[in-house]
Amino acid sequence: MTPQGELPGRSIPYYLRSGEGERYLVGGFVACLMARGIDTDNLYEWMVLTGGKGALLPSHTHSQTHEVIFVLDGEIDLWLSGQHYRMIKGDFASIPPGTTHAFRMQSHHTQLMSMNSGHQMTALYKTLGKPYAGYVQPSDNISALDPAALKQAEKAADIHFDGKPLPEGNAQRVVNAQLPKSVVPYVLAAGEGDHYTIADQLFGILCDNATTNGKLLVVTCEGPAGPMIGKHFHMKHSETFFCLDGQLRMVSNQVVLDVYPGDIVTLPAGTIHAYQHLKPYTHHVGLLTPSIFELFFRSQAPSTQHVYPQQPTGGLNASRFAELDIVPLERPGPPPSPRH
Amino acid sequence: MTPQGELPGRSIPYYLRSGEGERYLVGGFVACLMARGIDTDNLYEWMVLTGGKGALLPSHTHSQTHEVIFVLDGEIDLWLSGQHYRMIKGDFASIPPGTTHAFRMQSHHTQLMSMNSGHQMTALYKTLGKPYAGYVQPSDNISALDPAALKQAEKAADIHFDGKPLPEGNAQRVVNAQLPKSVVPYVLAAGEGDHYTIADQLFGILCDNATTNGKLLVVTCEGPAGPMIGKHFHMKHSETFFCLDGQLRMVSNQVVLDVYPGDIVTLPAGTIHAYQHLKPYTHHVGLLTPSIFELFFRSQAPSTQHVYPQQPTGGLNASRFAELDIVPLERPGPPPSPRH
Repeated sequence: MTPQGELPGRSIPYYLRSGEGERYLVGGFVACLMARGIDTDNLYEWMVLTGGKGALLPSHTHSQTHEVIFVLDGEIDLWLSGQHYRMIKGDFASIPPGTTHAFRMQSHHTQLMSMNSGHQMTALYKTLGKPYAGYVQPSDNISALDPAALKQAEKAADIHFDGKPLPEGNAQRVVNAQLPKSVVPYVLAAGEGDHYTIADQLFGILCDNATTNGKLLVVTCEGPAGPMIGKHFHMKHSETFFCLDGQLRMVSNQVVLDVYPGDIVTLPAGTIHAYQHLKPYTHHVGLLTPSIFELFFRSQAPSTQHVYPQQPTGGLNASRFAELDIVPLERPGPPPSPRH
Repeated sequence: MTPQGELPGRSIPYYLRSGEGERYLVGGFVACLMARGIDTDNLYEWMVLTGGKGALLPSHTHSQTHEVIFVLDGEIDLWLSGQHYRMIKGDFASIPPGTTHAFRMQSHHTQLMSMNSGHQMTALYKTLGKPYAGYVQPSDNISALDPAALKQAEKAADIHFDGKPLPEGNAQRVVNAQLPKSVVPYVLAAGEGDHYTIADQLFGILCDNATTNGKLLVVTCEGPAGPMIGKHFHMKHSETFFCLDGQLRMVSNQVVLDVYPGDIVTLPAGTIHAYQHLKPYTHHVGLLTPSIFELFFRSQAPSTQHVYPQQPTGGLNASRFAELDIVPLERPGPPPSPRH
C-alpha cells in the first residue's frame, strides 16, 4: 500500500481517507479525484464532488464513458436525457455514453460521487479546474466556468458541452425502484435496486452487466456489526469499497484498515481481501469492474425488504462459485454434527 | 464516565456510540433514547428515531415540552402547525409547547434526532413501544400504533394525540433561512441559521433564548482538521455534542475520546471539556441547556457565508467572557512580540 493520502500512480491496492485525493476547484465545487485512470489500469475513475448552492456542470455528453452518480449529502438537481430530477443521499443515476446530462448543487454542503468507466474524466477536472488545497468550496460565491476552459476540456477529455440551457421548473423527486434491462439512462431512489441477503447483510445492485454493457457493477451493502467475511481474491475484476455510514474493518493483503464514512479502499484484481461491519448500521458501496461478478449476488437469497434482516436469513450460497471469478482462501468450518 | 454503551441513570458525563442507548420499537421506527431525564438532571432528553417508509407518529401536542428536530438521513414529512414540510439531512424544526405536529418517514433508512426540554418524553416511547434489541426497523411492514397505547402514553407523558388526519398533497421543501425572534414554530433548511466564525470554524445557531424561552440552544459547527480548543467548563449549563460528519476528539474530564458520526457525548455543568476536529469536513451539533451561553456565539464574528472559511477569519472574541458562564482552564500564549 502507498502512504496514506497519496494516489499511487499505478494499479496497486491503496486507500484514502475522507477528503484525500487530487483536488481541483471547478467553478463552485471541489473535485476530489480518489481514483484516476493511472491508479486503476484505466478501468475506472472515482471522483467526489463537494460544493455549495448553485455549483454546476453544464449540459454535456460523454461519447465512451459510462458514468454513474451516487449522492452523499445535500440535494442536487440532475438533468438526465430530458428529465429533471431532485436527488438526495443514496439516490443513484446511471448515465450511459451519449446521454445528455448536467447537474446543479442545491445545498450549502452538497456532495456526490461520480464513478466512471475508463480513464478520460481525470483530464476533465484537471482542465476545467485549478489545483486546490482545500476540501470544501471557498465561499458561497460561485465562479462561472470559463468558456475557454470548456473548449479546452473537450479537447482533453471524453466530453462535449452542448450549450443547452438547464430548464427550470419543478424537479421530480427520484422514486424509481427498478433497474432496466438494457443500457439506458435511469435513476434509483435511495435504498432501491435489486436486493439479496447473505446472513444479516442486505445487498442492493444499482447497475449491472445489462445496464452498463459489462462495465460497472455497483452494489450497496448494509448490516449490523458482525464477523469478518472469509478472505478471498479475484483474478479478473477490481473492487473498490467506499464507506457511507458506520465503520468497516478491511483486510487488504497484509494490511488491516478501519474504514470510516468517506474513506475509499481499492482492491485491484489479485488483492487478498475481506471486510467486517463494526457498527450497528454499517453501509458501504462497492464498484466492481468489469462487472463479471454479478452472478455472485444474483445467486444469493432475493429479498423484497429494504432493511437488513434482524435474524440471519441463510448463509452464503456458494453453489456457483466454480463459474465465478473468486478464489476463497478461508472456508467456513464443517456444519455442526447431527444429534444422535 | 460510565462503561461504554450504558446510560448512567444520573447526571454525570457519559458517551454513547452510534446506535447505543435504550431502544424501543414504536410502530415502524426504533426510538433510541441517548439521554433520558434521569441522565440529565431533568434538563433535556435526546432521542434518535430510525425507521422505514411510512413509519409515523400521529398528530399530537406537548403542553410543556419544547421539542426540536434535526434530520440525519433520508426524508421525513413534518406536519407543523398547519404546514406540511419535506425535510432531509440537516433540516431543523423548532416545536414549542402547544404546537400541533406529526411526522412520517419517507425513506427506507430514515433517521432524525428529537431533542426535548425537560424529562417527559422517555415515558412516551416506553409506553408506546416495546423494548427492542435491534438498531433498525425489523422489516418494511409497519405495525400500526395501538390506540390503547396512545391513550396510555397520554397518561404517562407530556403528550396529547388529537386524532387529526395527516393531510396528503405536496409537501414543501424546507427553505427558510431565518430564525424568528419569538417562541413560534419554525423550520430551517440545512446549513441555515445565524452564522458566526471563530478561526476556521463556522457556527450556526438553530434555536436560542428568544425562540425557546431560554430552554434550548442548538448550535452546529463545521470546520477542517485543526487544533484542540482550550479546556474549560461551565458552572450553570450542560452541553451535549453529537457528531454528524467527520471525526471529533473530545476531552471530558480525564478522558480523551474519538467521536464518530452518530456518537453522543454529554457534558453536565462542571465537566472540564474541549474538542478538536480531526477530519477535513468535521460537522457536529451541540445542545446547550439552559441556553444561557448564547452570548458567547453572538459575540463572535458574524458570517454571511454557509461554508467554513479557508483562512482563519479571526480568533475567539473573549471580551465578554466576564458576563458568560465559562471558566477557561487554558489560555492561548502571548501574541508574538513585535519586530524590532
